Amino acid sequence: MSTPSFHPPQRTLMGPGPSDVNPRILEAMSRPTIGHLDPAFVDMMEQMKSLLQYAFKTENPLTLPVSAPGSAGMETCFVNLVEPGDTVIVCINGVFGNRMVENVQRCGATAVTVNDAWGDAVDPAKLEDALKQHPEASVVAFVHAETSTGALSDARQLVELAHKYDCLTIVDAVTSLGGVELQVDAWDIDAIYSGTQKCLSCTPGLSPVSFSERATQRIQKRTHTVQSWFMDLNLVMGYWGKGAKRAYHHTAPINSLYALHESLVILQEEGIENSWARHALNHQALKAGIEALGMGFIVEEQSRLPQLNAVTLPEGADDATVRGILLNDYNLEIGAGLGDLAGKIWRIGLMGYASRKTNVLFCLGALDEVLNATGAKVTSGKAVAAAQAVYAAS
Amino acid sequence: MSTPSFHPPQRTLMGPGPSDVNPRILEAMSRPTIGHLDPAFVDMMEQMKSLLQYAFKTENPLTLPVSAPGSAGMETCFVNLVEPGDTVIVCINGVFGNRMVENVQRCGATAVTVNDAWGDAVDPAKLEDALKQHPEASVVAFVHAETSTGALSDARQLVELAHKYDCLTIVDAVTSLGGVELQVDAWDIDAIYSGTQKCLSCTPGLSPVSFSERATQRIQKRTHTVQSWFMDLNLVMGYWGKGAKRAYHHTAPINSLYALHESLVILQEEGIENSWARHALNHQALKAGIEALGMGFIVEEQSRLPQLNAVTLPEGADDATVRGILLNDYNLEIGAGLGDLAGKIWRIGLMGYASRKTNVLFCLGALDEVLNATGAKVTSGKAVAAAQAVYAAS
Repeated sequence: MSTPSFHPPQRTLMGPGPSDVNPRILEAMSRPTIGHLDPAFVDMMEQMKSLLQYAFKTENPLTLPVSAPGSAGMETCFVNLVEPGDTVIVCINGVFGNRMVENVQRCGATAVTVNDAWGDAVDPAKLEDALKQHPEASVVAFVHAETSTGALSDARQLVELAHKYDCLTIVDAVTSLGGVELQVDAWDIDAIYSGTQKCLSCTPGLSPVSFSERATQRIQKRTHTVQSWFMDLNLVMGYWGKGAKRAYHHTAPINSLYALHESLVILQEEGIENSWARHALNHQALKAGIEALGMGFIVEEQSRLPQLNAVTLPEGADDATVRGILLNDYNLEIGAGLGDLAGKIWRIGLMGYASRKTNVLFCLGALDEVLNATGAKVTSGKAVAAAQAVYAAS
Repeated sequence: MSTPSFHPPQRTLMGPGPSDVNPRILEAMSRPTIGHLDPAFVDMMEQMKSLLQYAFKTENPLTLPVSAPGSAGMETCFVNLVEPGDTVIVCINGVFGNRMVENVQRCGATAVTVNDAWGDAVDPAKLEDALKQHPEASVVAFVHAETSTGALSDARQLVELAHKYDCLTIVDAVTSLGGVELQVDAWDIDAIYSGTQKCLSCTPGLSPVSFSERATQRIQKRTHTVQSWFMDLNLVMGYWGKGAKRAYHHTAPINSLYALHESLVILQEEGIENSWARHALNHQALKAGIEALGMGFIVEEQSRLPQLNAVTLPEGADDATVRGILLNDYNLEIGAGLGDLAGKIWRIGLMGYASRKTNVLFCLGALDEVLNATGAKVTSGKAVAAAQAVYAAS
């Protein structure tokens, strides 16, 4: 009873991630594996750092990809910057804020939470109240772009507030990097992590991170050893740091790094500002189509992410039925709602390579047909044209 | 100033890993990315578990690939099985035993070390002494196949001793899995981790792990929360566990998992016992060639790993010069010595897809030529024939 090779179906990925992967990236990933201390590989690592600095808009020397998914990038930030007994203010407006609280507690620290409704941006006034009430806090953590709701928070303002009260900042940019404006240096962010499988359109599995000089110093002056050996940046720096002598830390995921390198080359070719503009345009087109169907968004317009559209189910639509038909008949994946939003929203991703006209028109056409055919109350036949009009006017 | 795509050289990888990757695996890795909750992907995950159970020779339900390199697999074992205040006996006979000590300490536990010389197998008598002296110990950890020295320890006997004194066992099988006999169930191993880039000949980046029923119960009955969120098996089980409802934990590294799946399919096609026999044969051929050159091994014959050959530098050979010529002129990577063995040994890997006649003959021929040309004292011109004779007699 032998297991055959696995041949996945060819999907169009318009959920919360992974997003459609550019074929150039898949090809790069299958290039010949070389050693993790090979001079050719070491050159590639140096390029990788520069490319990540470009993507994050930073000159932080401590900018590198963690050899594990975004969740490990999150944990890398917390275990390195938080010590037992610390107080960390965590802003929660979706799933990933809650995960931050888990991380803080596992570091032996106390989490003070600032809560906003799912779908809302983080409220700076609430953060400032918490900062005033907790002068002992040393770190503020928040999610820039909440993947569970599609809400964008004002990172610049939140960081400014944190610094006013002498706190470092940890920013989740998993869904924002490459899709909306993000300025690590100009906004003075101290620690940031992202993922490869969202707006970078790469395969999942790595987590780009960057740390300011201030954060790096905090790590170097810790009084407790970092609780994770694998994620201890004092050790990781020995491998990724500049210089002739690289200390072996762990075997780097060579081919996954080829993929990330290629995705960053593609980003650089396009220009990151152009990438932000492309995400904005395709969102406008999708929005026109969604509204033409008679559907709406759960996030207010000014804090709506272009790359992750949380749209409300129309009356009479059955969540699982519609997503099942889209997946099975159209090979199209869109995302379900999480937590309290399960069954109430869909999350339509327009991230990276998936943020293109073809995908917008295909998704709107498929939604229109399937919703109409399954008896949902929508205005049929106008969605694709509405999107086309946006492109025509652009 | 734009960065071009990265095109790695085509190397022959005969160091301590990554090893040569089967082209089938590189092709599998570049198949279309699908979602981590896609029904097709979930089917693949179930197959993956069965294939890993086959490779580990176990029926442990808790058998899965950690979404990060072997070092994270190591840490997953320690953070889940060790609690603050515990005592762990760690057997050290190379680099990776030391790393285990680091892990124990970062869990807030005490490490008692049992030390053997680099190049020796772990001495069971020393372990038993330590077990007698430390009745408070709850875990014994050791490396089955030391990648830094090429020494194989008797896992079955060490596990038996640990159980006699009521300790669980954590076994490092990074370099052993697929290359030498390894029987998780028959030897009653409690927790084991490996890597993908050694004898499975897959790309680096994932760490297969397996936990016995006894270990699983210990994890479920912990009094302290696991300090790592990313590696907490209570959470990871929710995603990898059987059942209709899979709880989202982190975004799985989809394409890397395609690669591991394919490598395990290849292993199953060959038959794992045949893979062990192949590694043994190619080692014999390499050994005949190495000895014909007049060189020797640092590990005694009975505990020598077939897949990782630690050979002594001949008189007059310059480490960096020889490896440099092999890499630059032959595109052949062999490994340097680590720690005290730096400059004294080379580590020649014959792992997985690299364990084949072509590689043995190519490596011996290149070594013969380069050593001879750089003035090292070797018996030239007989190595390849000596290896050929082994194949002819097999």
